[in-house]
Amino acid sequence: MKNSVNLGFIGISGRGSGMLKELLSCDGVKVPAVCDKYEDRALNGKKIVEENAGYTPDVYLDYKELLKRDDLDGIVCCTTWITHARIAIDSMRAGKHVAIEVGGASDIEECWEMVRASEETGKFCMLLENCCYNRSEMALFNMVKQGLFGEIVHMQGGYQHDLRDEISLGRENRHGRLYNFQMRNGELYPTHQLGPISKVLGINRGNRYISLVSMASKARGLHEWIVNNKGEDYDLANYKFNEGDVVTTMIKCANGETVVLNHDCSLPRPYSRGYRIQGTKGIYMEDGETIYLEGISKENKEHWTHTWEEFYDDGYIDKYDHPLWKKYRQDGIHAGGHGGMDFLVLSAFVESVKVGSQPPIDVYDTATWMAITCLSEQSVAMGSLPVPVPDFTKGMWIDREPYRRGQFCLEEVCTDCFSKEELE
Amino acid sequence: MKNSVNLGFIGISGRGSGMLKELLSCDGVKVPAVCDKYEDRALNGKKIVEENAGYTPDVYLDYKELLKRDDLDGIVCCTTWITHARIAIDSMRAGKHVAIEVGGASDIEECWEMVRASEETGKFCMLLENCCYNRSEMALFNMVKQGLFGEIVHMQGGYQHDLRDEISLGRENRHGRLYNFQMRNGELYPTHQLGPISKVLGINRGNRYISLVSMASKARGLHEWIVNNKGEDYDLANYKFNEGDVVTTMIKCANGETVVLNHDCSLPRPYSRGYRIQGTKGIYMEDGETIYLEGISKENKEHWTHTWEEFYDDGYIDKYDHPLWKKYRQDGIHAGGHGGMDFLVLSAFVESVKVGSQPPIDVYDTATWMAITCLSEQSVAMGSLPVPVPDFTKGMWIDREPYRRGQFCLEEVCTDCFSKEELE
Repeated sequence: MKNSVNLGFIGISGRGSGMLKELLSCDGVKVPAVCDKYEDRALNGKKIVEENAGYTPDVYLDYKELLKRDDLDGIVCCTTWITHARIAIDSMRAGKHVAIEVGGASDIEECWEMVRASEETGKFCMLLENCCYNRSEMALFNMVKQGLFGEIVHMQGGYQHDLRDEISLGRENRHGRLYNFQMRNGELYPTHQLGPISKVLGINRGNRYISLVSMASKARGLHEWIVNNKGEDYDLANYKFNEGDVVTTMIKCANGETVVLNHDCSLPRPYSRGYRIQGTKGIYMEDGETIYLEGISKENKEHWTHTWEEFYDDGYIDKYDHPLWKKYRQDGIHAGGHGGMDFLVLSAFVESVKVGSQPPIDVYDTATWMAITCLSEQSVAMGSLPVPVPDFTKGMWIDREPYRRGQFCLEEVCTDCFSKEELE
Repeated sequence: MKNSVNLGFIGISGRGSGMLKELLSCDGVKVPAVCDKYEDRALNGKKIVEENAGYTPDVYLDYKELLKRDDLDGIVCCTTWITHARIAIDSMRAGKHVAIEVGGASDIEECWEMVRASEETGKFCMLLENCCYNRSEMALFNMVKQGLFGEIVHMQGGYQHDLRDEISLGRENRHGRLYNFQMRNGELYPTHQLGPISKVLGINRGNRYISLVSMASKARGLHEWIVNNKGEDYDLANYKFNEGDVVTTMIKCANGETVVLNHDCSLPRPYSRGYRIQGTKGIYMEDGETIYLEGISKENKEHWTHTWEEFYDDGYIDKYDHPLWKKYRQDGIHAGGHGGMDFLVLSAFVESVKVGSQPPIDVYDTATWMAITCLSEQSVAMGSLPVPVPDFTKGMWIDREPYRRGQFCLEEVCTDCFSKEELE
């Protein structure tokens, strides 16, 4: 196991800047090279490294030049959605492990290319799905593995986030979402809840997604926001956006579970990922942060008066905190992005590179989760026809063993990473 | 307009008993004939009329005999699901208006038969969708019509009700749900939230459902309940139920709105119809009873910190109470079933029969809403293929005018039924 790793950083947008700072705070990380195609952003990356780590990295405008270096163990990529897969593939082909920010794939072929690149080079490709490392998601994962929900039957999640300003002003703020919403129509951003869902369902390890269907509503929100905020003379005021305001996707699993995803970013609403876990013994819903577990939750006699408990206020989060979060909180919370989950997901990648063992979110997970986007677009384009989900493991999902269980493993709540006392 | 009506009552189960009492409390209603194929239930109907109305009705075991009477203006039918359509058709063919309890259709053809029977005889066929008359649904309908949600884009609803005991003990309690869950697989009970949704979306009046897709999860809940509560020697302990525990249905509208329905009756959970209304100006969600209206709800400066308000506690329900409910509450709440909505939906039918004008839920609504069940079964059976929804109005939906606006009308919040003062 290495004590330190050299990582190149590509893509220093607003999000990239935050992630670069997080990465520099991970133990044993050095970032000797930063890159962005915009010079001001690249120079900002240099400044961030100087201010946060005390040394000066080399600056690149072309990521392919950065990839020619032979002193890098891995790459962290925070570029725009449609470039993630190709940069991941190029990084692995250049002999580097790679971690990419979340987003969806544009075509199934680039998912296969990621898989082939990883299998042929032995390099890792990890989607930085931070929500897998959110405190409540990990506590719930812990509860599922302990059997508290019984057999899992149905799950829901979504990315429900009012981003009308960020999307509409995509040219002004150089954010790629605008073009995606102009041109595409489908589940553009599936992984924030699909990641935790996939880990609960054991996707690619004894279970897999077999088919999906998507349906898109009409597109009205961005037009109305632009007219109201930029005026009728603004050049996009009459633009007909392709992306439906609400896109719903239903996914069927090999073992019979169903998943419903909701993409909802262009209407006014409070944020929610709409997480739902439903099994033969109970249900959790993020909306309202409510939970009901048969035989555990407070009960009325009448069957129709089961009552919700509060996931936070009734103590579930504390009682079932995941060992990783217990440890993290005991060590003192890192003042990082999104409540700590950015730091944790980057730490998981760094640990994998140090140990030289596959990350908890591997190339099969990455390909499967990202593929939902282009499959969803296909389904919408064909009037909500069901489309098959590829098996990126090519049959291996049937009997794959978990990887080495590092402290960031997401396969199970295991006694290999934590002592019995830590698990209780 | 008649001052009183004679109604025959068919189907005196637990639900039927409650509805018969409600019906007898409606102004100007006489029930001279009751019917159930089980003699004990039929006699119970007689007793209910005697005790609640002070006269003795004739008792029938065969509804076709009851339909031969020439003193009945209409029929109220609370039999088992799969018999609603045929009894409705026979009633209209026998010259009686008919109201039927909720449920889904077994085949599209019986929906068309209902439409034909109503068109050919001039008799009404009203689905008794009580949730259309629930207080919060009516207040929300009022708010939609006043434009508070902007243009409606997406809606959700469901029937999420832990009925494992009622279903599993269907033979012991003579409830037809058991056989439906044994044999069928689809959205068996769509109308409780589809009714209010359809009225918000103007279905069959300027809008219509054009296609749907359904997906069913595996079936585990009933088996587990039976084993745990009736033991492994119970004859149904190893029965393989067809009905998936959670069935999700996506429906597309002619005007581009999407609807997601959720059927979830065989897992442990608190009750919810999961109502969601989402438009270009705001969102309401039954789960949590939360609402957010842009420019009205309390606001933070940051776009990602929109905050929910409480639909009840923050006064929305009082401020936007529907005129019908304002009047109903002023007159003194009727201590009836399901918080008053059973009384109101029956009153709507009674008013229609008295006036001789089509009811607020007409045969086209009834056929459309009930059809979702068999269409959903078809979609599930074909691996979630999309299926077209028939246009039961045969083109009339494009420019239909609202019927006479009685106080129970569900077409709009109109000044024909209520004064301006009542609407404010």
